[in-house]
Parts: sequence; structure tokens; C-alpha cells
Amino acid sequence: MRVAVLASGAGTNLQALIDRVHGREGVELVAVASDRPAAQALERARAAGVAAEAFVLGADQNRAGRDRAMASWLAERETELVVLAGYMQLLSPEFLSRFPGRVINVHPALLPAFPGIGAVEQALEYGVKVFGVTVHFVDEGVDTGPVILQRAIELPDAREPAEVLERLHPIEHQLLPEAVRVIAAGAVRFDPSNPRHVIVDR
Amino acid sequence: MRVAVLASGAGTNLQALIDRVHGREGVELVAVASDRPAAQALERARAAGVAAEAFVLGADQNRAGRDRAMASWLAERETELVVLAGYMQLLSPEFLSRFPGRVINVHPALLPAFPGIGAVEQALEYGVKVFGVTVHFVDEGVDTGPVILQRAIELPDAREPAEVLERLHPIEHQLLPEAVRVIAAGAVRFDPSNPRHVIVDR
Repeated sequence: MRVAVLASGAGTNLQALIDRVHGREGVELVAVASDRPAAQALERARAAGVAAEAFVLGADQNRAGRDRAMASWLAERETELVVLAGYMQLLSPEFLSRFPGRVINVHPALLPAFPGIGAVEQALEYGVKVFGVTVHFVDEGVDTGPVILQRAIELPDAREPAEVLERLHPIEHQLLPEAVRVIAAGAVRFDPSNPRHVIVDR
Repeated sequence: MRVAVLASGAGTNLQALIDRVHGREGVELVAVASDRPAAQALERARAAGVAAEAFVLGADQNRAGRDRAMASWLAERETELVVLAGYMQLLSPEFLSRFPGRVINVHPALLPAFPGIGAVEQALEYGVKVFGVTVHFVDEGVDTGPVILQRAIELPDAREPAEVLERLHPIEHQLLPEAVRVIAAGAVRFDPSNPRHVIVDR
């Protein structure tokens, strides 16, 4: 399965994908795109021999145009699955329609709790004792698509976002490659009686 | 600490309190009230030698009047903590003001996800992979008060409410007595920098 990754930042989830699934079990990373030319994710991609490109909003490029150019670049590389790994932009409906049911995202909360940005900050503000990570299909809402994998961690005494993120990152780095692996293996399907219920055959 | 329990149904959470904390570590169950005269919880209370009474809505009794009568009955028994254990009625603001910050509830979901009735059904409909239990202080909202304890369980293949509830009940039966125990021990306080953040000293 030919996999593309979109990332905005340091790219540690991308690195987990490079280290754990790239070139194995039928998974090939074929493209990494970012909204930020300085994103470390692009360097990580190039270091791993994966095509990397920034698609930036600007005076001559609105969101729809940027997403169209990015989708075409990914399609040229015959992308079969698009993985959002710390990608901080909303994708246009047109982009999603180019990869129907083939875009996934990792989110640092147990969705549907705490969608959107600042999930860990939201959770701390609420005062939860259990945190977690969700990998889900992307639909047109903000973190509303069907859940593929979730993992929880009890942190009853957590007070600072940094300490929670430090515990969530290793879970993300495990869960996102695992999701790519099971999708590549054809082990992910929707429950016909409830299309929001994702069945993972193991 | 003198503890009252409100319950509507079978009273298995009440039974857990009777078996695990009643008469121990400074905890005394002193009253059990129900909105249903036939609730098995009332029988369990009487069998344990705890005063039990039903407070029923009817032609001559509206919600405010019922809650006032119930609050007076609990106050006569010098109730210091009110525990909702499967109590299916909303409490009036007046009732809550009689026991400020001294009413707790157990809910079969990881709040703030899936508040209100049918929490497990809501979670299955959403398609979550992680379920859980929350014990929280009761405020005037529906399951919106500060979280005291939470515990999660991964059930990625769950499809039916009954199978999820069967896994959640033992967690409830552990978590609710634990919450009563730590409150009785004076080990529960609010973080001055965030009143939604409940600190449990252990």
C-alpha cells in the first residue's frame, strides 16, 4: 500500500512510520507533504529517501487551490492512503473526495471528547483522570470520523500539558503505525449494521 | 462519615458500598432512598440494617416537593455525603444546595463523553474502542461536575450494550467505594488553580 503523510511540525509520528512500517508488510511511504516549508518532517522524509514537498497558503494560493495542488501531487505518486500525522490544517471537502475513506488522523484524546486543537489542554481544564489517543478516519468534521484504534492511559495527577504529551507521544508512535499496518493488511472494515463501527480483524 | 445512597434499580452499586466500606474506615451508611418503592436497593438496605425509604413523584408530589422531603429525611439522619448509585432522577438545585459539594455520582462513561442516559449505547453508536467509568461531584448540569476518579477499559470488539455493562459493573463496584473511602479520609480536595481539578491524596 502506497502511503502519503501530511505533517506540520517536528514529524515524530512520521518518524515512527518510517521506523516501524516503511518498506515492511506491504507498506511503502511514497510522499510527505507539509503546510510549512520549515517543518522538520520534510527533512525526515528526505533523509529516508521519500519525496517531500511543502504546499503553502499565500497571496496567490488559497486553501482550495493549495489542497488541489497537494492532492494532485499525491495522486501522481499513486497514493492509496493519506495519513495526517500532526497536520494542523483542515482539509477541503474536495481533497477528501479525492481519497474517499482513505484519509486517517491521529488525535491526542479519547474522541469524541476534546476534538480540535489543544486537546490535552482541554482535557486538563476539564479535570479528567484518563487521557488517550485516537486514530480515526477523517471526514468533513473536526475529528468526527469513525474510530479505528484507541488507547487510554490513566494520569490522575497530571497538571501540565507537557507531562501528558510526554506520556501520549509513545502511544501515538505505536498506534499510528499499527493502524497503517492493519489497513495495509486489509483487516479494517465497517460494520454493515453501524457504519461508524470500525471492525479490525486480527 | 455518615453516607446516604440514592438508587433507582437493582442496587448493585449500593451492595458494593455495603460490602466494601459500610462500617469501615470511618464510613457509615445511614440512609438509602429511592424514587421507586419496588427498587431492590431498598431491600438490600434493610437487609443491612440501613434505614430505607421511597420518595415518589405523584399527583400530590412534584419534583421540588419530593426532593425537599427526601433532603429533610437525609438531613434528619445527619447525612454528610450523598452518593447517587444508579439514581435515575435529576436532583433539584434546592436539594443540591442542602448538601453543597457533598453529592457524588457514578457514570458508565469517560466523561465528558456520553453524559446522560444510555451512555453505553451512545458510546457503541459512536464506535469508541475505549469505555470507562467516572465518579464525579454532582452539580446542576447533567454529569458535568468535577471528576474524582476515572478508570478506562479497552473493548475494541464490543457490539452490544450488555457485554459492555458486564465489563463496566465490576469497575463501578470498585471505583465508587474507593471514592467514598478517599472522601471519608479527607483525601479529596480541589486544586486552587483550577476548581475543576480534583486532587486525591493517596
